[in-house]
Amino acid sequence: MHSAAVSLEPMPTMWPNLRVRNTPFTERVEAVGARGYTVYNHMLLPIAFRSIIDDYWHLKQHVQVWDVSCQRQIEIVGPDAARLAQMLTPRDLSKAVPGRCLYAPMVDAAGGLLNDPVILKLADDRFWLSIADLDVGLWVAGLAHGMGLNVRVFEADVSPLAVQGPKANELVARVLGESTHDIGFFRFASVEFMGHEFRAARTGWSKQGGFEIYVDRPDLAEPLWDALFEAGADLDVGPGCPNLIERIEGGLLSYGNDITVANNPLECRLDQFCHLDADIDFIGRDALRRIRDDGPRRRTMGLFLDTDTVGPVRHRWPVVVGDETIGAVTSAAWSPAFGQGVALAMMEWGWWTPGAEVTVETPDGRLAATITDLPFADPTT
Amino acid sequence: MHSAAVSLEPMPTMWPNLRVRNTPFTERVEAVGARGYTVYNHMLLPIAFRSIIDDYWHLKQHVQVWDVSCQRQIEIVGPDAARLAQMLTPRDLSKAVPGRCLYAPMVDAAGGLLNDPVILKLADDRFWLSIADLDVGLWVAGLAHGMGLNVRVFEADVSPLAVQGPKANELVARVLGESTHDIGFFRFASVEFMGHEFRAARTGWSKQGGFEIYVDRPDLAEPLWDALFEAGADLDVGPGCPNLIERIEGGLLSYGNDITVANNPLECRLDQFCHLDADIDFIGRDALRRIRDDGPRRRTMGLFLDTDTVGPVRHRWPVVVGDETIGAVTSAAWSPAFGQGVALAMMEWGWWTPGAEVTVETPDGRLAATITDLPFADPTT
Repeated sequence: MHSAAVSLEPMPTMWPNLRVRNTPFTERVEAVGARGYTVYNHMLLPIAFRSIIDDYWHLKQHVQVWDVSCQRQIEIVGPDAARLAQMLTPRDLSKAVPGRCLYAPMVDAAGGLLNDPVILKLADDRFWLSIADLDVGLWVAGLAHGMGLNVRVFEADVSPLAVQGPKANELVARVLGESTHDIGFFRFASVEFMGHEFRAARTGWSKQGGFEIYVDRPDLAEPLWDALFEAGADLDVGPGCPNLIERIEGGLLSYGNDITVANNPLECRLDQFCHLDADIDFIGRDALRRIRDDGPRRRTMGLFLDTDTVGPVRHRWPVVVGDETIGAVTSAAWSPAFGQGVALAMMEWGWWTPGAEVTVETPDGRLAATITDLPFADPTT
Repeated sequence: MHSAAVSLEPMPTMWPNLRVRNTPFTERVEAVGARGYTVYNHMLLPIAFRSIIDDYWHLKQHVQVWDVSCQRQIEIVGPDAARLAQMLTPRDLSKAVPGRCLYAPMVDAAGGLLNDPVILKLADDRFWLSIADLDVGLWVAGLAHGMGLNVRVFEADVSPLAVQGPKANELVARVLGESTHDIGFFRFASVEFMGHEFRAARTGWSKQGGFEIYVDRPDLAEPLWDALFEAGADLDVGPGCPNLIERIEGGLLSYGNDITVANNPLECRLDQFCHLDADIDFIGRDALRRIRDDGPRRRTMGLFLDTDTVGPVRHRWPVVVGDETIGAVTSAAWSPAFGQGVALAMMEWGWWTPGAEVTVETPDGRLAATITDLPFADPTT
């Protein structure tokens, strides 16, 4: 074990207030010993419970309950909702039926990424955007107002609770019923808990499988949390949160870290969600077509780092060959499964070849590194 | 001293990454011993250096340098900039000349507060919104796109550094020149530092006076910080940050704490910035006129709390009389100057009378409290 490699940096304490919002689960999260928080969409998000490494192994072997209330839901509802939702993303929503979850890059007129939400189609005239860390509901509301659309846009009082890990299916079925086995990947369905119908989706920000339950009754948040822990005792259920190591290995990009408005979806490998020739109307189409036709100039790649310790990425770490800068690391962690560092990097054209050897300039010195494709191949399976 | 009353709550550590952005001053801030951070506009904001009480006294007696880079600047520039800026706020901008800073509530169509920036008029066709904690630039950009306005909206790479306290004038004059004495309240002017022209404004989020320097050259951030500390050694210059106690006593409202989109500017005592009968075009006018005509139903008031310890406000604390809830505390601290607690509360109609006695339900028990007007009278002057 190289626990020092991912110990929590001694960042000072945070002052709690109303602006940095609690969630309906915060008391439970603190009772089971959150090791730290970050702030995400003006809301507390735990960063670890035992340690990032212990949490990593537990997530890959058992089942975890995650308070991801900070994935706020921006509701768009009304006669113009479908038109407005489509304007936000190059992903073709026209054939989606209610019950679908659609990972959808959102771009501005220049093709820059504003967010990468999962869009839940609740009805033909009603959508939730389950957003990453940016108040992108204001972009949607501004467009709606500026265009005079007949639609309401607001943050719904909905707090997702994720259940992730190889035993998540079993645990969710015990608490929310056997019908949850029938929910397809990136689909949601109604499930009953204490007499209330919740939406449960087969989604989540890990590669270990599981569900996100959209808790729209704050008074049922703690009973649901408790029911999952009670029903999962023999499954070694534990508290968790998005895990830095696991999500890097899985190639899951984090808005604000690996993606910003300075990036376009094509260089972030989101081509499959960009239907640039579909008969749909969305903001940024001309810009994205131009980028496609010219060819993206950068691309998100993986890196193995030859090291037994990886600190937090507080500034982009330059990736160099000789004295030429050819990319930048945006996220990194020490992987106990690989026994070396793993990183996500935005690499310039010509440096997209797995196996190429490069150097990363970290605050603690230069590291030898090897380019790899994403997601990282899992050495434990 | 009741240091326990305002000790930093043992909130766990925060994991640093790119999403929670460093500022150009972060290395200096850490070198002088920030006791903690909060996150504000996706950026680190220190919460204390010695202690909140020690920082309070120091701010009121000497001079502090604050890294308030998190007050991000949303730039609006182009032929339609003035029209768009006016649409955002009920404050009449039509007569403002370049060089003015205007505290300007921003509201949506329902009159709900989206932000309370200081607007800097750089030129007739160029504005900066120095924003509170919400990505309100997206609202502005969405409006501009939806209306097809000829304007650019973006976050400028500008990091304000505040110099606050009774000796701020002297310190700023030493470093940026005697001409700074001539800068009027809520005005800005160009000042020279190391051959670069910075904008310096006589503004800041305290009642102790001082300046905010708009640092648009990140490479000059540390030299400016160092120059202020070197020039101010005999003035007892120290690091600081917005102080919870001082700003409550001064009646400075915090977006996300004391103000949210559920509030309108009239109930938040911002009437003087709402020119509802001016010949200007802004979003929310009909709603605000209706609220004015009906009379606001709530109002921000101060409260004295009869206690020698005040913990953080993580949920709104109900204000009650008997079994009737008549308001809610949104911010609170223990004041060493008053020797009791001070709080900001949103009070229902009928409970706006200074001197009225009420009860506050805190997580640590019920407190006797007395309503007072804002700002709190300063017992030390």
